[in-house]
Amino acid sequence: MDLDSVARAFVEHYYRTFDTNRGGLAGLYQESSMLSFEGAKTQGAAAITAKLTGLPFQQCQHNISTIDCQPSGPVGGVLVFVSGSLQLAGEQYALKFSQMFHLIPTPQGGFYVLNDIFRLNYA
Amino acid sequence: MDLDSVARAFVEHYYRTFDTNRGGLAGLYQESSMLSFEGAKTQGAAAITAKLTGLPFQQCQHNISTIDCQPSGPVGGVLVFVSGSLQLAGEQYALKFSQMFHLIPTPQGGFYVLNDIFRLNYA
Repeated sequence: MDLDSVARAFVEHYYRTFDTNRGGLAGLYQESSMLSFEGAKTQGAAAITAKLTGLPFQQCQHNISTIDCQPSGPVGGVLVFVSGSLQLAGEQYALKFSQMFHLIPTPQGGFYVLNDIFRLNYA
Repeated sequence: MDLDSVARAFVEHYYRTFDTNRGGLAGLYQESSMLSFEGAKTQGAAAITAKLTGLPFQQCQHNISTIDCQPSGPVGGVLVFVSGSLQLAGEQYALKFSQMFHLIPTPQGGFYVLNDIFRLNYA
């Protein structure tokens, strides 16, 4: 699978899981994983999952506008940069966001998220 | 210097150079460096500098809203995620943008940009 396909498959999986079964994101992170969510830093799969499932909205839908990816170095990592919008249930306007992920290969042939940085883009 | 200080110093240096002496950015890239600019991919310091100096605007000013950073792994790399706005000379409205950099330490004690991904955030 080429890098663009890896990035696209990851992005589809990540946001579909976020929007339908947020706790299922736990399997994408490991103990070394880091999340910066609107400037708040969290580390480790359990703490990151708690942060994401504890966000003050239940139903949401991400719509993706752009996906960029690049190899992050010699060990097979992939940087994925996403822009899109986030529609919260009951809100009139969608929120624009940008997010980046650093994916690291696992011995099993998949990837885990080492780095995750999320920011809303205020108009 | 801690990671936040590295990121802040880099961001200040990068955008000040971009806005006052764009060709001076060449020194921040190496042959392995990659740029994705609005989806267009370029590789290598010379090609990246040509891309940036050839953008169809001369005077501009970046204003930074947020800087996030995380270590990218065991070899001392730093991921820097920036949001802000870009004011072009003669344009009434500033353009919102997001950009990420992956900085890799050099033997001389500095950093170079291995990965650079830039996107405008259309409202």
